[in-house]
Amino acid sequence: MTEPTTKRILTGITTTGIPHLGNYVGAIRPAIQAVQNSDDDAFFFLADYHGIIKCFDPDEIHRSTRAIAATWIACGLDPEKVTFYRQSDIPEIPELAWILNCSCAKGLMNRAHAYKASVDMNLAKEDTDADFGISMGLFSYPVLMSADILMFNATHVPVGKDQIQHIEMARDIAGTFNFKYKELFTLPTAVTDENTPLLTGLDGRKMSKSYGNTIPLFGDGNPTIDPQKALKKAIGQIVTNSQAPEEPKNPDECNIFEIYKAFATPDEINALAEHYRRGIGWGEAKEILFNKIDGEIAPMREKYAHLMANPKELEEILQMGAVKARRVAQKQLDKTRRAIGIKPLAKLK
Amino acid sequence: MTEPTTKRILTGITTTGIPHLGNYVGAIRPAIQAVQNSDDDAFFFLADYHGIIKCFDPDEIHRSTRAIAATWIACGLDPEKVTFYRQSDIPEIPELAWILNCSCAKGLMNRAHAYKASVDMNLAKEDTDADFGISMGLFSYPVLMSADILMFNATHVPVGKDQIQHIEMARDIAGTFNFKYKELFTLPTAVTDENTPLLTGLDGRKMSKSYGNTIPLFGDGNPTIDPQKALKKAIGQIVTNSQAPEEPKNPDECNIFEIYKAFATPDEINALAEHYRRGIGWGEAKEILFNKIDGEIAPMREKYAHLMANPKELEEILQMGAVKARRVAQKQLDKTRRAIGIKPLAKLK
Repeated sequence: MTEPTTKRILTGITTTGIPHLGNYVGAIRPAIQAVQNSDDDAFFFLADYHGIIKCFDPDEIHRSTRAIAATWIACGLDPEKVTFYRQSDIPEIPELAWILNCSCAKGLMNRAHAYKASVDMNLAKEDTDADFGISMGLFSYPVLMSADILMFNATHVPVGKDQIQHIEMARDIAGTFNFKYKELFTLPTAVTDENTPLLTGLDGRKMSKSYGNTIPLFGDGNPTIDPQKALKKAIGQIVTNSQAPEEPKNPDECNIFEIYKAFATPDEINALAEHYRRGIGWGEAKEILFNKIDGEIAPMREKYAHLMANPKELEEILQMGAVKARRVAQKQLDKTRRAIGIKPLAKLK
Repeated sequence: MTEPTTKRILTGITTTGIPHLGNYVGAIRPAIQAVQNSDDDAFFFLADYHGIIKCFDPDEIHRSTRAIAATWIACGLDPEKVTFYRQSDIPEIPELAWILNCSCAKGLMNRAHAYKASVDMNLAKEDTDADFGISMGLFSYPVLMSADILMFNATHVPVGKDQIQHIEMARDIAGTFNFKYKELFTLPTAVTDENTPLLTGLDGRKMSKSYGNTIPLFGDGNPTIDPQKALKKAIGQIVTNSQAPEEPKNPDECNIFEIYKAFATPDEINALAEHYRRGIGWGEAKEILFNKIDGEIAPMREKYAHLMANPKELEEILQMGAVKARRVAQKQLDKTRRAIGIKPLAKLK
């Protein structure tokens, strides 16, 4: 069983924040495209039990879960084709996480990058305990992530480079369990995509919520603001230099062009580069960028607005996903429980 | 809610090993008597998810669960009065454990006695990592124990002295959650009983499986051996000195007398002490001890044998307990989930 037979992709989405254009380009769009263009089995889940590790605001957890679910569906995730579920709807996952705790060396967690980074920050301060501010949630998060993956015998887990270590940990835990008890868990492989662009933010740095330099995807979650106008306004705020419109410009030194590349075809990109070299006004460049992005996301925006106004529909989609996911999870957990000696004393009925 | 209103006792029983006479005198009998003589709400559970921390033999886990469940019922635990369940039948418990992980400082776990003892043993060896051989199960066991307790808002948890710290940790975790989110969890109190005797083993040391000096309660789990004969044989092996039968003897220096005290009334104890001082043969003393113990446990032994031969009956009892326990657990988990922001996006139907 350690040699995977069918390909099964698994992607977790942490439920904090409202998705912005950087999330769309860097995570949502490539993940959905990868699934649309293949016959692979795919599991996508809202990782709300990871969300509570760092976010203690219940309203934010709930609001984000809703916005993120609506975003993925609006962007084309097909819940009929993909198993799309909320982690907290699958009680088998935390139960498996406990079982895996007993097949996971504490030393493995000591070496987790995220944990070590927190410890290093504490040690850099005077009179601070190495574990100051670190919860057991943060420390044992790779075990929950292993349960997320091993529960479904996922073979391929698309991750950022900072997450590769967690997949290695899942492999390690699976291997320990398989050796100690029974070959039940497939060893997953981390998949990283070097080609996915990291979107540039308004100020030229990587687009990130923590820099406050994001362009909204479907608005910022405030229903009184028109999301199309919000997009236009944000693009208007992209920082440019003071060159006059008619001056020839270098496209490779411009944020607007950088973002444009993430949405346009090679021909369109060449055409705009040519326009830059001939001389282009920043206002015109921003107008071109806005039209390009808006052309791609306007249809999705409608779907998003519809889902946000009809949470019942979203909830139904997630419940359907939970039924599909639990069908797999219950079988796998039952096998796991039996392997460790936990089973009924007798068959009833 | 932090101030308990009704008294609720909770007792966990780890599912490794076959209960011996020391377990009976030190844990089973006093726990059952305490419940029989009160109107307190009581929860007793088979802690099989603790059992897997140290025992990797699935057959042993299963066999012990069966023998321990049969023992407690045979010894008089009334599953109609007490909520008697198997921990692994309550999926709400590991789910709550994950939530509590996020309200538990890692530093709290670093200070657990059991963990520190393991670390000290490692550090005493050369070239050994401090965490060598320590699993995440062992390290985070106090969080699972907190979930066991807080799930049911237990107010009183009878424990040995070595477990008092774990109850304090449960209070700490409950307090953190209550402060961060909502007052949902009752702070439990550890109850220790100084009067419960620690039974002497065959060799005069404390009776313990790890010393190999135990007297079986209902046999050793091997159905081909008559448990009454096994009791008699074990008592025959109690180590005595070489005094002649007619010599006066000091009862306070004798293992037989020590064990007798755990079963006899004060009058009977005085009478046997008198007999010792007059002179008693070791064979006769052992005969008196055997009859005393056998008088108490013979009726239970029959019930035990019946349950062991009818695992279906045991399973039904545990299933009934699971239904009762889950009725409480589901409500408490639902409140907990809502408090942290995990709830449906809309009400369906």
